[in-house]
Amino acid sequence: MASVSRFSYDRDECKGAPSFKRASLRQFSPVLVAMVGLPGRGKSVLARRLSRYLNYTGDVTKVLDISDYRRKHMEKYASHEMFRADNLPAWRLRQQSFREALEDAAEWLQEDGHHVVILDGPNVSRAQRQEIYDLIYGQLGFRIMFIECVCEEPAILERNFKDILQYSADYSSMAAEEALNDLTYKMAHYKAQYESPSLGSHWELPCPMVKILDGGYGGIVAHGVTGTKESKILAFISIPKPNQQVIYFSRHGESEFNVIGRIGGDALLSPRGRVYAQALAKHVQALNLPGLQVWTSTLQRTKATAVGIPAPQQHLHELDEIYSGDCESLTYEELQERFPRELALRDRDKLKYRYPQGESYLDVMQRLVPVLQQLETETNVLSVSHQAVLRCVLGYFLESPIEEIPYIHVPLHTIIKVTLKGYKYTMETVKMPIDCVDTNRAKPANCLINRSSEEALLTVPAHLDSLSSLNTLTTCM
Amino acid sequence: MASVSRFSYDRDECKGAPSFKRASLRQFSPVLVAMVGLPGRGKSVLARRLSRYLNYTGDVTKVLDISDYRRKHMEKYASHEMFRADNLPAWRLRQQSFREALEDAAEWLQEDGHHVVILDGPNVSRAQRQEIYDLIYGQLGFRIMFIECVCEEPAILERNFKDILQYSADYSSMAAEEALNDLTYKMAHYKAQYESPSLGSHWELPCPMVKILDGGYGGIVAHGVTGTKESKILAFISIPKPNQQVIYFSRHGESEFNVIGRIGGDALLSPRGRVYAQALAKHVQALNLPGLQVWTSTLQRTKATAVGIPAPQQHLHELDEIYSGDCESLTYEELQERFPRELALRDRDKLKYRYPQGESYLDVMQRLVPVLQQLETETNVLSVSHQAVLRCVLGYFLESPIEEIPYIHVPLHTIIKVTLKGYKYTMETVKMPIDCVDTNRAKPANCLINRSSEEALLTVPAHLDSLSSLNTLTTCM
Repeated sequence: MASVSRFSYDRDECKGAPSFKRASLRQFSPVLVAMVGLPGRGKSVLARRLSRYLNYTGDVTKVLDISDYRRKHMEKYASHEMFRADNLPAWRLRQQSFREALEDAAEWLQEDGHHVVILDGPNVSRAQRQEIYDLIYGQLGFRIMFIECVCEEPAILERNFKDILQYSADYSSMAAEEALNDLTYKMAHYKAQYESPSLGSHWELPCPMVKILDGGYGGIVAHGVTGTKESKILAFISIPKPNQQVIYFSRHGESEFNVIGRIGGDALLSPRGRVYAQALAKHVQALNLPGLQVWTSTLQRTKATAVGIPAPQQHLHELDEIYSGDCESLTYEELQERFPRELALRDRDKLKYRYPQGESYLDVMQRLVPVLQQLETETNVLSVSHQAVLRCVLGYFLESPIEEIPYIHVPLHTIIKVTLKGYKYTMETVKMPIDCVDTNRAKPANCLINRSSEEALLTVPAHLDSLSSLNTLTTCM
Repeated sequence: MASVSRFSYDRDECKGAPSFKRASLRQFSPVLVAMVGLPGRGKSVLARRLSRYLNYTGDVTKVLDISDYRRKHMEKYASHEMFRADNLPAWRLRQQSFREALEDAAEWLQEDGHHVVILDGPNVSRAQRQEIYDLIYGQLGFRIMFIECVCEEPAILERNFKDILQYSADYSSMAAEEALNDLTYKMAHYKAQYESPSLGSHWELPCPMVKILDGGYGGIVAHGVTGTKESKILAFISIPKPNQQVIYFSRHGESEFNVIGRIGGDALLSPRGRVYAQALAKHVQALNLPGLQVWTSTLQRTKATAVGIPAPQQHLHELDEIYSGDCESLTYEELQERFPRELALRDRDKLKYRYPQGESYLDVMQRLVPVLQQLETETNVLSVSHQAVLRCVLGYFLESPIEEIPYIHVPLHTIIKVTLKGYKYTMETVKMPIDCVDTNRAKPANCLINRSSEEALLTVPAHLDSLSSLNTLTTCM
């Protein structure tokens, strides 16, 4: 078993001031978040949700699941017997797994550009939590936050158990009844070993500790919260989120600007776009979704796309298309002619590139945060928005690497369904059989500023030259 | 007394969907935050802190203090007798004040571009809170959040009482002992009327309710939190903040770039700048501040300015000067020559203007948020930073109108002391007697794009033309 002494980390900023306690300068240090709670209390789902949110909002975060370490040491999960307090060899194995995960967490925090690590596991004993505290805070000078998930609400527990039986690697090859029986025993073993980190108004350790009751629906209790990352985490976990969730997305129907290859603007739908709007309304009505809501951007093309759907609608500026500033309403050909340097800079780094007087993908990602946070608490919302915005939204739910977000394929006339399954969101698409242009411009091979116009325009999708050709298009629909 | 029926407000986004309950679409509506608690529990300080933070971070917020309304109806505060439950005429007056404040709050929320209103007052009775709920949520469809301040910690209470006796308008013309006696009775009257909105695990109303214990030092309990504004508010109030606070600021000493009129860059200190660094260290040492910490930017000139101060230091990217992108290291003269349109656009709207591939003041304000949030929990921090950054920081603490922030005067070689006094931060400055250039360029009268170079450069402060002249400057120090 590796020893914890392999760490002798010291914060850079504290060097040169050896006579001062490091503790006083830990305000902005990386944070280890340790989950606490019995199996089936929603720890893992919460850990993954939190990680998804933190990564998207710029705090580079990783989840380490202690049970993954335990599984590395076993050929195959046998039974609940390994969680008994009096099963000494199994206890040793579990301790070892805990330590390995903790050490990997410590190692990860020490790498540049890492902000948060989440240690996902029951961490039910006082001794384990003390060990986390001593290594991470005492020895390494990082910050710590404990999140305890307490749940006694039968409906939530039942749902959580179902998820475990369906998605846990331990039960993947066990018959349903046997698995449920095993899980019940496992729970009982953990209950016998459970020492809650808070007893009334007393808290076990001098660091932020949060107790979440019934998945947040029963409220939260927090103590000793300090640090901006911790308060950001608290804000996120304080809002209860359903564990069954389906969200629908669609771009607006094909717009007049799409047809003639112009970006941005506030154009109307093309005739084919209007047909898509009708088809979308029909499709959504047939789904008969209880409590359906529609969120669109404030631009004409999304409102017109959603107008026929009989559900409450709201129009949010946050869902407006990326604003291309001085480049609004231009075609790529015009962009290349008038701003060749800008187009090359954009192709080089589409994520960070900001249009002159306009926005970057990063800007859009940021302004979307409140909407995403809210969306994560909803079910049966249909959001009708735009190519760049939906790339960011899907990037959030599907946890795409941030650099890939500006290239996610979100075609027109396609309904996207995002469903929470266990820890993860999965995506399905329904392509409606209504012709439309392709608006996706792949990254050109040559992104140098001195490239030729031909090279810059190589990947521009085909489009008409003027609106007057639109009528021809209508007749061949 | 005005009737509540003067409101018949309906959210725009719900129009056209009359058959759907408005309630389902309230996710992004404006929020009324109602404080609850006995006098001296820290409600007003918290309300003002929250308002300062929300306004700075883009949620336009106003605090309405019910006692201001009460004072409008009285020539002069007489005594605690007016807070007795059995003093019927006084009770009517207090009820009237409560309603007037509530109605103004409702009216304010209905105006475009307003996001949060904070109703500051004891709101100790269940009936009052029900009335708030019925009007704001039931009738108008806005959101509500209650924040209850509970405090039993003698040291905190004593400090809060002192603040009330010193800063409350009621006690401004009363002798100290009489005032303390009166406040004690007032408290007792309110205690007799106090109905807490939470009883164990039961909460009075189906909306977010947060209980803050001992100014946050005793932790918080939150129930029913929904909505991104509410979770943002929760994050802010969850971190306890001291009610005695002094923070020091200074720009770096004069830099080589300051001397020759160049913006941005990462220059060294000028000889006079190095003299300032020594003087600053001497001055700060003489203050003998317990627990002093120094926060600088990551640029050479702030580190060199702070290096002689014997205190723990950390260097934060968030405190780096506004990044002027393609315009880094230019003089205003060069800027006008090479980017005349950019300079004019900047002069027109310095707050929102973003340098090409660089930052705007708004960008800087945003990246400063975590540092400001942390700074608000500290005392005896000296932050050595830059002109634009300190404009934003001072704008935050002094609650400057946002458009004025880019023009706040922050001269070189000046120590700025910001002290919390009651609800407000006040500022004092100490100008060190060490010559330096003036780097403040006032807004020119003509901000049109076609202005002449002369007009554009009219307010550029005097500077040398090259570094070779620096030696002359050194000798005449």
